[in-house]
Amino acid sequence: MKKRSIALMTDFGYKDGFVGTMKGVILSINPHAVLVDLTHTISPHNTLEASIVLRTSYHFFPKGTIFLVVIDPGVGSTRRSILVETEKYFFIGPDNGALSIALENEKIKKIVELTNKKYFLQDVSNTFHGRDIFAPVAAQLSKGVPISRFGELTKEYKKFTILSPRIHRHGVSGKVIYIDHFGNLVTNISGGMVQKLSLRKMVIKIKDHKIEKLSANYTDSEPGQILAVVGSNDCLEIAINQGNASQVMKAKEGTEIEITVG
Amino acid sequence: MKKRSIALMTDFGYKDGFVGTMKGVILSINPHAVLVDLTHTISPHNTLEASIVLRTSYHFFPKGTIFLVVIDPGVGSTRRSILVETEKYFFIGPDNGALSIALENEKIKKIVELTNKKYFLQDVSNTFHGRDIFAPVAAQLSKGVPISRFGELTKEYKKFTILSPRIHRHGVSGKVIYIDHFGNLVTNISGGMVQKLSLRKMVIKIKDHKIEKLSANYTDSEPGQILAVVGSNDCLEIAINQGNASQVMKAKEGTEIEITVG
Amino acid sequence: MKKRSIALMTDFGYKDGFVGTMKGVILSINPHAVLVDLTHTISPHNTLEASIVLRTSYHFFPKGTIFLVVIDPGVGSTRRSILVETEKYFFIGPDNGALSIALENEKIKKIVELTNKKYFLQDVSNTFHGRDIFAPVAAQLSKGVPISRFGELTKEYKKFTILSPRIHRHGVSGKVIYIDHFGNLVTNISGGMVQKLSLRKMVIKIKDHKIEKLSANYTDSEPGQILAVVGSNDCLEIAINQGNASQVMKAKEGTEIEITVG
Repeated sequence: MKKRSIALMTDFGYKDGFVGTMKGVILSINPHAVLVDLTHTISPHNTLEASIVLRTSYHFFPKGTIFLVVIDPGVGSTRRSILVETEKYFFIGPDNGALSIALENEKIKKIVELTNKKYFLQDVSNTFHGRDIFAPVAAQLSKGVPISRFGELTKEYKKFTILSPRIHRHGVSGKVIYIDHFGNLVTNISGGMVQKLSLRKMVIKIKDHKIEKLSANYTDSEPGQILAVVGSNDCLEIAINQGNASQVMKAKEGTEIEITVG
Repeated sequence: MKKRSIALMTDFGYKDGFVGTMKGVILSINPHAVLVDLTHTISPHNTLEASIVLRTSYHFFPKGTIFLVVIDPGVGSTRRSILVETEKYFFIGPDNGALSIALENEKIKKIVELTNKKYFLQDVSNTFHGRDIFAPVAAQLSKGVPISRFGELTKEYKKFTILSPRIHRHGVSGKVIYIDHFGNLVTNISGGMVQKLSLRKMVIKIKDHKIEKLSANYTDSEPGQILAVVGSNDCLEIAINQGNASQVMKAKEGTEIEITVG
Repeated sequence: MKKRSIALMTDFGYKDGFVGTMKGVILSINPHAVLVDLTHTISPHNTLEASIVLRTSYHFFPKGTIFLVVIDPGVGSTRRSILVETEKYFFIGPDNGALSIALENEKIKKIVELTNKKYFLQDVSNTFHGRDIFAPVAAQLSKGVPISRFGELTKEYKKFTILSPRIHRHGVSGKVIYIDHFGNLVTNISGGMVQKLSLRKMVIKIKDHKIEKLSANYTDSEPGQILAVVGSNDCLEIAINQGNASQVMKAKEGTEIEITVG
């Protein structure tokens, strides 16, 4: 049996036994699977948020990792279930866009719609396909079952689009797309773009605040001060040295950010 | 050494190093143990809640799994510590009822009261038997120590009773017994019972709401609407499509639910 | 490859993929590493809190465990990164005091400042050294790379001091240094000291409350009553049987506690 990593990502939280149950199902099929939690606190039903977190994280995992991504507001409905093989990885989950931002960067080899009930649990509920379909398929895949056995080949999958920032003659208009545990505001403006703009005199405006330089890191200002930095996922972030920018600035996903150069 | 799964369930939360410390103790004794978190956010001291979550989850784990269930408000007092062997599994923890709902479905082979200090840590505190007694016993068991070595055989263990719903001539009176991460209201009315009732004209009343059909899944209504569904643990659940029923309906454990047929 | 435990401790929380990403990096380098979460909910940037939790937990882990402790408010600044080898363990993290309380009890063999970029990820960000420096170094170390390869030997590391309680002629003046998940108030007064004082007539004063005996365990009083007990980390704790002392007593880190004997 292959000692293959399976990375789990859900909106199931930590209160119930949901995630543990999925792991029980996987270990029942492949006791040698290496289980890694990516996160289980995606906001309930928020497939777009999931797609951003997955995109930021997946490429640091070992070649061959199986990503089991179950944010599934449509469980039991007609939404499809898919398995995507790329050059380096496998992705499994409901076909609702959560996989799509990560897949933008991957060379897709095959997509299979999961229809072969032979690889599901015997009794499939209408409310918990993470346990009944996705976990057993991931476990069987980790044991070496060829991808084509799980269902029919397909070409389509649902795609999300992260709106690119608007470039205009005075600068760039972007927005906050994600807020992390520390309250840092991750924007849709790439590190490369802001670094280029910062070569000239630049002003970043967000809410009522003006930031006039790009900091090298979170401590490149006084504690408590608002700063702009290129974050670890190579996007412009607005942060507060040792503070929580989201709380202090009352900023959230969708908050607008404006960079003007002059 | 046996590569045996040990599933951990506690009310220790994630703030402290309590759970990590138990894992450190286990790996010190059996480095090959496969550790799986079932949940660590059982409400503090809530052994009844623990018994429900365990019941819902345990049977999806591999044969031979050791369940280490430490919700222990009576730690250091005269409450007993037990190890239960069933046909498929092992259960370890304080004898306070947390194991009992799961054991209702299991064929019990042996129960041992944990008294043999040889298998405890050398210094046993009065406040953390998860670390000092239960973790080392689970680890030794996972290495193949026979169950009879851990103490004396016993027949008794503390049992909880989940009140069955009351069946009367107009229908069924039940109650909410658990609220999950999504705010879904899990009731004590079985899936089979509600499916049978739904063959006739049926009205489900909970708080001020009336539900007139059994939905196939969470999306079988408009987003935001209250619905009734048979959940993944085969109980009647009241839910809101893409919403939080517990918050919206101000329902909690103990809230009454009434099904009338006419 | 060595099947060595790596215990992770951060203030990264569970919302983002930060911790999962560090694990992905480690498993990419050493697929046989055994990953254990110590905790990831240290209060953001609170290196002192981290040092207390680490001190309480680390010595229950297997000999040879690598502790990866990343609470890193100064990431990307001039703060140093260190690897400490003691007789039993390895500790890796930013040199900001978080390791120091644990190291007080350890026989230190070598300290290395992490400067050899050969063992970092290829692109090192200014905001996430947990992923780019500390995780890959821990993984390489777990594969057997000798500690001297990671950088220059050093003697210094930043030390925190937990203020000892003040002993005076009427008794002892201490304070609360940590509050756990259950709301128990952990003080800087050792178990040995309070046990000795309790041999005489002793009064413990905290906020407006008086406690006149040392309880054997949390249940050694009526439910809801405030009590004093020697906790699992061998410090005097103030607790409430089946209740939350921190919330009820409005006590926090720094709250004073006074023991007088007469």
